[in-house]
Amino acid sequence: MLFRLIYDDALAQAAYLVGCQRTREAVVFDPERDVDRYIDLAASEGLRIVGAAETHIHADFLSGTRELCERVGAAAYLSAEGGPDWSYRWLTKKSGGGSYAHRLLRHNDSFDIGGVRVRAVHTPGHTPEHLCFEITDRGSGAGDAMGLISGDFVFVGDVGRPDLLESAAGQVGAMEPSARALARSLREFNALPEYLQLWPGHGAGSACGKALGAVPQSTVGYEQRFNHALALASDEGAFVRDILSGQPEPPAYFARMKRENRDGPAVLGAVPAPRPISAGDVPNGAAVLDTRPWEQFRDGHLRGALSAPLDRSFPTVAGSFVEPGEDIALVCEASEVDRAVRMLVRVGLDRVVGFVLPSMISSAPGLVRTKEVDAPGARALVASGRVAVLDVRRGAEFEAGHIDGATNIAHVRLGPRIEAVPRGKALLVHCQAGVRSARACAYLEKRGFDVTNLAGGYAAWEKARG
Amino acid sequence: MLFRLIYDDALAQAAYLVGCQRTREAVVFDPERDVDRYIDLAASEGLRIVGAAETHIHADFLSGTRELCERVGAAAYLSAEGGPDWSYRWLTKKSGGGSYAHRLLRHNDSFDIGGVRVRAVHTPGHTPEHLCFEITDRGSGAGDAMGLISGDFVFVGDVGRPDLLESAAGQVGAMEPSARALARSLREFNALPEYLQLWPGHGAGSACGKALGAVPQSTVGYEQRFNHALALASDEGAFVRDILSGQPEPPAYFARMKRENRDGPAVLGAVPAPRPISAGDVPNGAAVLDTRPWEQFRDGHLRGALSAPLDRSFPTVAGSFVEPGEDIALVCEASEVDRAVRMLVRVGLDRVVGFVLPSMISSAPGLVRTKEVDAPGARALVASGRVAVLDVRRGAEFEAGHIDGATNIAHVRLGPRIEAVPRGKALLVHCQAGVRSARACAYLEKRGFDVTNLAGGYAAWEKARG
Repeated sequence: MLFRLIYDDALAQAAYLVGCQRTREAVVFDPERDVDRYIDLAASEGLRIVGAAETHIHADFLSGTRELCERVGAAAYLSAEGGPDWSYRWLTKKSGGGSYAHRLLRHNDSFDIGGVRVRAVHTPGHTPEHLCFEITDRGSGAGDAMGLISGDFVFVGDVGRPDLLESAAGQVGAMEPSARALARSLREFNALPEYLQLWPGHGAGSACGKALGAVPQSTVGYEQRFNHALALASDEGAFVRDILSGQPEPPAYFARMKRENRDGPAVLGAVPAPRPISAGDVPNGAAVLDTRPWEQFRDGHLRGALSAPLDRSFPTVAGSFVEPGEDIALVCEASEVDRAVRMLVRVGLDRVVGFVLPSMISSAPGLVRTKEVDAPGARALVASGRVAVLDVRRGAEFEAGHIDGATNIAHVRLGPRIEAVPRGKALLVHCQAGVRSARACAYLEKRGFDVTNLAGGYAAWEKARG
Repeated sequence: MLFRLIYDDALAQAAYLVGCQRTREAVVFDPERDVDRYIDLAASEGLRIVGAAETHIHADFLSGTRELCERVGAAAYLSAEGGPDWSYRWLTKKSGGGSYAHRLLRHNDSFDIGGVRVRAVHTPGHTPEHLCFEITDRGSGAGDAMGLISGDFVFVGDVGRPDLLESAAGQVGAMEPSARALARSLREFNALPEYLQLWPGHGAGSACGKALGAVPQSTVGYEQRFNHALALASDEGAFVRDILSGQPEPPAYFARMKRENRDGPAVLGAVPAPRPISAGDVPNGAAVLDTRPWEQFRDGHLRGALSAPLDRSFPTVAGSFVEPGEDIALVCEASEVDRAVRMLVRVGLDRVVGFVLPSMISSAPGLVRTKEVDAPGARALVASGRVAVLDVRRGAEFEAGHIDGATNIAHVRLGPRIEAVPRGKALLVHCQAGVRSARACAYLEKRGFDVTNLAGGYAAWEKARG
């Protein structure tokens, strides 16, 4: 058996390639949409991808399962659990007509990829249809499982949040029953053998939980010992209270991902390769994602551009502030275009029409600046009564301490909550350190607000206390 | 705690970066010599490398521990076990004078990197001084260990070979006592808790064992269940017989690695960046590593060049056929130079003086060809009695079936065994499929032999049986 982790740092997302060296076949678990990476990795190991499996209908990225079905004729292995609301609706929509080769799995169903046995384990909670995949290396003669591909069920040091159906996808009343279902699934997890490897779907930084560890994988026994949420599962009331509090606000694009992953992500074909364009060639109405450092953006950017440096926040920022129908122009070095485009298609933003080199911005006509003040300046502004304060941190941060009279909307929720942004006054926008608020300022300017960013954020504000 | 695997595909070598997010400190276990990768990875996670630890004195690559001591002032954590023959001799040889910060560890000694507790476990067998490192994430409140960095003690599905001191480093009589020591260490491993992660020093393809699995890591409990060598450890006699048979021939450069890792690898400073040169500029006496596909090499190469495509065999081929004092010129695309140079410095070949673009070879004067025949042609040659047959496969392959009268020398041992190569007749050189023998042919031509490669190797030979 061959086993490989393919990790996306920005979305903190883990896909797994599992293959049989004897039959030269492989299956990818939870692929992202730019599937050439999996195909190339498999080929470099002499393997052919014959299957693509999903632990659940993802909310944080667009699945590459359909793409693998189209591109290499992989069979789809998907959950048949969870009821009609979250059943897959794309299996009969093959390009050119007909159905994809597929198998819908119920609890305890299994399939083989050469000598690799894969058994589905229904683990509802994060989502109703959620499966884990137990992997057994029968080709090496093993009679017992090696480990569990756990998706968004159990992470290293955390468990998958059960609130997204309600908080992200708007299914009112789903949160508490989901949390109770999760507690039941976790109690079954507690009966698994200690020695099993645990291969989770996400690592530190993912918005699919609140405290994921920065260790790529774990074991069942270690989580049984030290996973706080798992330990609570035996006390269902306490578990439900704990798991439903303090979760980060889900980015606005999560609802769309869930819908598209159920109904069928558009077939990509190949990773788009946008052409170089001049600043004047940016199409009217296109979303401009400007990847330059904030200071450069602040001091002069194309009107309506979004500030989106190519760090780990890029897909979340793009997913939160760009609508899927919009054309996109990047401000980006040529060497970074492919990386940026991949991050975009992973959240379903495919219409990248061109990129402008950063060196061409300074000479472009009609550049605009974004206002920024330091903490003493911000205190003076607030004292003057001329600004309303918008705090774009997470709710849990806001509750731990905030500026008097501030409105709190997490930066990743500004799109759907734009009506709640104070009107009639200029805005002083801040977060904890000044990074998220910079992204928010660019977006709010695009939406017509008069904004000033607080450099250094709430941390600087507190330090500047007189 | 942050944990990252940094894997070298060619040497199938695993280094681990382990850090504490609170104190922003990190330690690298078993670093290779181009340490900028670890430094950059740590920096991207906001960490500073303060320590470098070695499980043992490596035979298959040159250690980067001293390099990290020089470059970032890391403290060295090394074994004090194993006796004077294999004690480190470089700790007092800091550039500019003085000693490196270091700590010599005995069994059960521990050190802390922020909230990470590292405990040394003496596990002799592969080498006398071998340590494993037990990792405990105290920063997250864990009272028990998370896993074991196992070096070349226990791999996924195999154990580290105990014969290298004798078979590679020439310490006569060391093999059997080492195997018995390994059996004792393994019996202690069998008492460890099942849930621990196992982070081995090598993966599939390494020459440090015979049957390493293609799964990056494992658990103690899984190996206790399914590791064949580990299961044998309770029967010491059977274990010793089994573990000492069928091991691959150690490449010729292993002896040098062990010596240099003990005495102190030369300080590199930075990864060499050779300049582009023309074929005519290759210095007299330089070793030419021609990375083009075999067919192109065969049909015309610089006199004395070695055939060394940039696949996973590259470091082994270079390490086996280039002497450390030699200047090296690459025939290589500009975009591949850095990758090639890194693979070379990892086996202590630092003197890369330039690279020639592949497109410039065809017009170079004085190109030579290497002879090659298909299997029927080879059978005719052998029947004519005009050639001696040199079989460059591993001994175990040779014993399973070979051409009558063939001499067997594994291709990676041709250097030290050059006196055993038949003289006075042209050579028909073959391996199993024709790849290793192609590398061997180039080397033997350089050493003055008249060689013909058997395309398709012994497999084709057998197929062509009349």
